[in-house]
Amino acid sequence: MTFRAPLQSLDLALAAAGLPDLIAAGYPDLDPETVSAVLDSAAAFAEAELAPLNRDGDRIGARFENGVVTGAPGFAQAYKAFAAQGWNSLAADPEFGGQGLPKVLELAVFEMVHAANMAFGLCPMLTQGAIEALTLHGTERQKRIVLPRLVSGEWTGTMNLTEPQAGTDLAAVTARAEPDGEGGYRITGQKIYITWGDHDAAENICHLVLARLPDAPPGVKGISLFLAPKRLIDDEGRLGAANALRPASIEHKLGIHGSPTCVMLFEGARAELVGEANNGLAHMFVMMNAARLQVGVQGVAIAERALQQALAYAQDRVQGRPALGGEAIFGHPDVRRSLGLMRAKVEAARAICLLTGVLADQARFAPDDAARELARGRQELLTPIAKAWSTDIGVEVASMGVQVHGGMGFIEETGAAQHYRDARIAPIYEGTNGVQAVDLAGRKLSMMGGALMPDLCAEMAADAAALAGEPGLEGVGRRLAAGVAALSAATTWMQQNRGADALAGATAFLRLSGDVIGGWMLARQAVLARTRAPALADSRAALARLFADQVLAQAPGVAEGVMAGGADLAALDAAALAG
Amino acid sequence: MTFRAPLQSLDLALAAAGLPDLIAAGYPDLDPETVSAVLDSAAAFAEAELAPLNRDGDRIGARFENGVVTGAPGFAQAYKAFAAQGWNSLAADPEFGGQGLPKVLELAVFEMVHAANMAFGLCPMLTQGAIEALTLHGTERQKRIVLPRLVSGEWTGTMNLTEPQAGTDLAAVTARAEPDGEGGYRITGQKIYITWGDHDAAENICHLVLARLPDAPPGVKGISLFLAPKRLIDDEGRLGAANALRPASIEHKLGIHGSPTCVMLFEGARAELVGEANNGLAHMFVMMNAARLQVGVQGVAIAERALQQALAYAQDRVQGRPALGGEAIFGHPDVRRSLGLMRAKVEAARAICLLTGVLADQARFAPDDAARELARGRQELLTPIAKAWSTDIGVEVASMGVQVHGGMGFIEETGAAQHYRDARIAPIYEGTNGVQAVDLAGRKLSMMGGALMPDLCAEMAADAAALAGEPGLEGVGRRLAAGVAALSAATTWMQQNRGADALAGATAFLRLSGDVIGGWMLARQAVLARTRAPALADSRAALARLFADQVLAQAPGVAEGVMAGGADLAALDAAALAG
Repeated sequence: MTFRAPLQSLDLALAAAGLPDLIAAGYPDLDPETVSAVLDSAAAFAEAELAPLNRDGDRIGARFENGVVTGAPGFAQAYKAFAAQGWNSLAADPEFGGQGLPKVLELAVFEMVHAANMAFGLCPMLTQGAIEALTLHGTERQKRIVLPRLVSGEWTGTMNLTEPQAGTDLAAVTARAEPDGEGGYRITGQKIYITWGDHDAAENICHLVLARLPDAPPGVKGISLFLAPKRLIDDEGRLGAANALRPASIEHKLGIHGSPTCVMLFEGARAELVGEANNGLAHMFVMMNAARLQVGVQGVAIAERALQQALAYAQDRVQGRPALGGEAIFGHPDVRRSLGLMRAKVEAARAICLLTGVLADQARFAPDDAARELARGRQELLTPIAKAWSTDIGVEVASMGVQVHGGMGFIEETGAAQHYRDARIAPIYEGTNGVQAVDLAGRKLSMMGGALMPDLCAEMAADAAALAGEPGLEGVGRRLAAGVAALSAATTWMQQNRGADALAGATAFLRLSGDVIGGWMLARQAVLARTRAPALADSRAALARLFADQVLAQAPGVAEGVMAGGADLAALDAAALAG
Repeated sequence: MTFRAPLQSLDLALAAAGLPDLIAAGYPDLDPETVSAVLDSAAAFAEAELAPLNRDGDRIGARFENGVVTGAPGFAQAYKAFAAQGWNSLAADPEFGGQGLPKVLELAVFEMVHAANMAFGLCPMLTQGAIEALTLHGTERQKRIVLPRLVSGEWTGTMNLTEPQAGTDLAAVTARAEPDGEGGYRITGQKIYITWGDHDAAENICHLVLARLPDAPPGVKGISLFLAPKRLIDDEGRLGAANALRPASIEHKLGIHGSPTCVMLFEGARAELVGEANNGLAHMFVMMNAARLQVGVQGVAIAERALQQALAYAQDRVQGRPALGGEAIFGHPDVRRSLGLMRAKVEAARAICLLTGVLADQARFAPDDAARELARGRQELLTPIAKAWSTDIGVEVASMGVQVHGGMGFIEETGAAQHYRDARIAPIYEGTNGVQAVDLAGRKLSMMGGALMPDLCAEMAADAAALAGEPGLEGVGRRLAAGVAALSAATTWMQQNRGADALAGATAFLRLSGDVIGGWMLARQAVLARTRAPALADSRAALARLFADQVLAQAPGVAEGVMAGGADLAALDAAALAG
C-alpha cells in the first residue's frame, strides 16, 4: 500500500482542535461513532481508490488534444465513485442535498484525499468553492437547479479569476460581461490557471467567472461574479447546447499533472450573475477563505504522504552500522531526527489547519453571538497561517523525504520526487504565501481592535505556564513561553510599524506565528494524548520536545528578524542584487 | 541572455577569500590581469555556449536507445569546444598539459559553467576527479598515456563507486577484480548512478572503479581502485577494441536531464590497478574532497542562476501598487526581501566555497609547513560545510526563485522549475548532506586535537569585535559575536558528547556552522568592498545586515537545538512516526 490514512493522528488532532465541544454545541445528533465511521470509510476510499492512481496521474497526466481534455488514467471513474459515495457533500447544506456535517470533518476527509492523490482532490475542492458561493449568493434558480447537482457531484465547479495581467491583483481583471437583453450576460475574455477547467469526469462544469459589466467602475469595485456553464442548462436542469467557452490549452507543469490546468477562452459565453453586480470580489473572498484553508490542508497531506514513503524506505534500506540499533538506516540518528522533525512538523501543521476548521464551524454554531464573533475573528487570523505555514511545511517535508531516500529519491520511479514537485504549487496558488503574510501582518493584526493575536498569545502563555505541571513537558513549557513572548513582542512591533517596515517583516512574522502556534498545539496534543490515546503519550511528548528544541528555540531570533525593519531594502536595488 | 556571469561578485569573493595572498605566496608569475582575463573568457563561454543549451538539455535530455547513450542537443559539440579552449585543464599540472593555475580560480570558472548548465558541468567535473586520482596515484603508463588526454579533455573520466547495496557504505562494495595473469585485471560487477557513464562527447571514457581483489580482506580495507577504459588503450595511446563494459540503462531523474546517469555493467572488463591494492578507498577520498567542494559550488551556481531569473521576472512583472516604488513586483517589500535574502545566501555560500578553495591551494603552496598544515586542516573542516550548507542553499534559493514567479514558476516553460529540480541532487550526491554533517561533527571536530573549529571561532570573534569600528556594520558585529559564541558553545558540547547525542545534533551543527561562517564572510566582504569595490559598499553592507538579522540572529536558537541531545530519538520508533 502506498498510502495509509493517518487515522490515529487525525483523531487526536481533531480532539485537540476542539471537535468534541463543537459537536456538543452545534451538532447534537452527531455521535463519535459516526465521526469515526466517516473517517474510516474515507480512509478506505482514499487508500484503495485514489492512491493507486497517483503515479499514473503524474506519469501520464491529463492530456489536451484537438481542443479536448482527457483525464489521467482512472480519474474520471474514480471521480464518479467519489461522488456516488457522497464524499462531495459532507458539509453541504442538507437543503441542497448535503449531509450537514462539520466542515472540519470534511477537511479531515479531504486531507486523506489530497494525500492519496492531490491532483484528483483539486476537482472536488474547486467544486466546494462553487457550492459555497451559490449557497451564499446564488439566485433561486441557481439554488434550485445548479447547487444540488454540484453537491451531488454530478457537475463540477471552477473558479475563473486569474488573467495574464491579473493574478494577485484582481483589480486588473478585464474579462467583459455584456447584458444579453434577456436577463443574462455574454462573457468575453481569457482566463488562465483554471484548475480542472475542462475534463471528462462529469457531464457539466459550472464556471464561476470574474468579469466587468459595461458600466462598472474601475478597480476592484467594478468586478462581478458570474456563472457560465460548459453546457447550457434549462429550467428543469436539462443540459442543452455547448456554451461559447473552451479550453485553449492545458499547462505543462512541474507537478500535479493529473489536474488539468486550463487556459479558458470565453467567446461570448452565456452567463448568469451571482450575487450583486460589482460585488463579485467580496463574494469570491468568501470562497477563498475556505479554499485557502483547504490548500493548507494540501500542504499537510503531501507532507504526510512524503513522510510515510520516507519512513518506509528508511526501515527497508540497509546501510552502515546504525547507532540506534537495527540494520536499516532508520537506526541512524541523523535519519531518525529527520523523520522525527518531519512528523512533528506535519502534526503541527495539521493541528493548525484543523483548529482553523473548528473555528470556521464555531463561527456558525457557537452558542452565542460573542463566541461566534470570537471564533470568526480567530478563524480569520489563522487562515493565512494555516495556508502559508502548512504549505511551506509541505515543500520542506517533501524535500526532506527526497533526502532520506538518498540517490533513490532523485529517480522518478521512486515517487518521492513527485511529492517534491506536487508540493511546490501549494505555496503559490489561492494567494501566494507572500500575500498571506501581508494579509496576516496587515488586515488580520488590525481586525477587532488589534486584539486577535494578543488574545491568542495570552491563551498560549497560560497553557505554557500550565505545562510546568506536566512531567516531561516542563521544558516545552519554557520554550513555548519564550516563543509566545517573542511573538507578542513582534505583534506589538508590527502593529506599531506600518508601510514598508511592516511589509518587510511580514513573511518572517507569519513563520514565527506558525512556529509558536504549532508548538503550542503539539504541547496540547501531548497533554491530551495522556488521557485520550495513552499509547501515543510518550511519543507525542517526544515530538513536542523535538519541535520545541529544533523549531521553537529559534523563535526569539526569528522575532528579531521581524523587527529589523525594511530600511535596507531600498539599498538593495536591481544593480545590487544582480551580482 | 538567460545567464550573466556574476563577475563583480566573484572578484570580491575571491579577494575576500584570500586569492591575492595566495598568488603572492604560490603563484608569483600570475598577475591580476591574467586572473581577470581567465574569468572574463570563461564568463563569455558559459554565457554564449553553455547557457543556451540548458533548456533543451532538460527538455530533451540525454537518451538511451539500443545500448547507446546519445547526449542532449549540442552537448557533445559544446564539450569539444570547452576542451579545445582549455577550460578542462586550468589547475592541472603543467607536466601533464595543464595550466597550473590555482584551484580556486578553476572553482570560480566552474561555478559559471555549472550555473550556465549544471548537467554539462558534471562531465568535466568528473574528469577532474580522475585527473586528481591519476596525478597522485597513477602508474608511469597511466601518467604518460592517460593523464594528458584527460587533461586535454580528449577523453573523459568517471567515478564508479556505488552499487545497489553500497551507497554511503562503500564497505559493502562487491564488484570483483580478477588478475588476468598478464599484470592486468578483469572487473565484473554492476555500478549505479554513474554520472556521464557513457556518452558521445569524447572518443574514450576512463572509468575509475572500486572493486575487490580475490584475496582482499572484507570491509573498507579490501577495496582497490582500478582504471577501466571504454575502449582499450595501447602503449602509444591508440584506441583499440571496445572493453567488456557497457551502460545497461540511464536513469529517469527529477533533474539534470542533460547528464546521463548510467547503470554500468562490467563483464570481465580489462582494467589496470591505480595506486596500492586494497587502498582504493583512501585514494578515492582524495578525489572526494575536491568533488565535494565542487558540488558545493554547484549549489552556489544553481542558486545564482535561479536568483538571476527571479530578479529579471520581478523587474518585469507588473502587479499591484508596490510600496517601494515602481510598477513591477520588485517594488513589493516582501518580494524585495526574498530577493535580498537569496542574494545574501548566494554570496555567503560562494564565500565559503571559495575560502575552502583558497585553503586547498594554500595547503600546497603556503610558505611554510605550519601554514600548509593549518590550511589543510581548515580545508578539511570547511569542506563538509561548503558541500552541505551551499547545496541546501541551492535548493532553498531555487525554491524561492519559483515562488517569486508566482503561478509562472510552476509552468515548466518558464525555466524556474528546472532549477528547483536540478538543485535537488546536490544535497544527495558525493556524500549526502547527512554524511557531511556526521563527518563535520565527528572526524573534523576531532582533528588536530579538536582545535580547528575553536581556532576559527577565535578568528571570527576578533573580526566581530573589529566591526565595532566599521560604520553601519556595528550591529552585524554584535550579531556575529553572538553567533560565534553560540557556535563555540555548540562545538564544545559536540566535542564532549559522542554517540547518538552528537550524531543527533550533527545536521543542526552543520547549519549553525554555515550560518555563522557565512555571516562572517559577508561582513568581511562588506568591509573589503569599501576599498576594493566602492560602488558595492552600500549594498554589501545592506546584505551583511540582512543576513545578520534574518539568519545570524537565529544562531543561539539553532545552537540550543544542537545541544538538545538525542535522548528522544529512541522514543520516536516506527509506530510513533507512522501517524
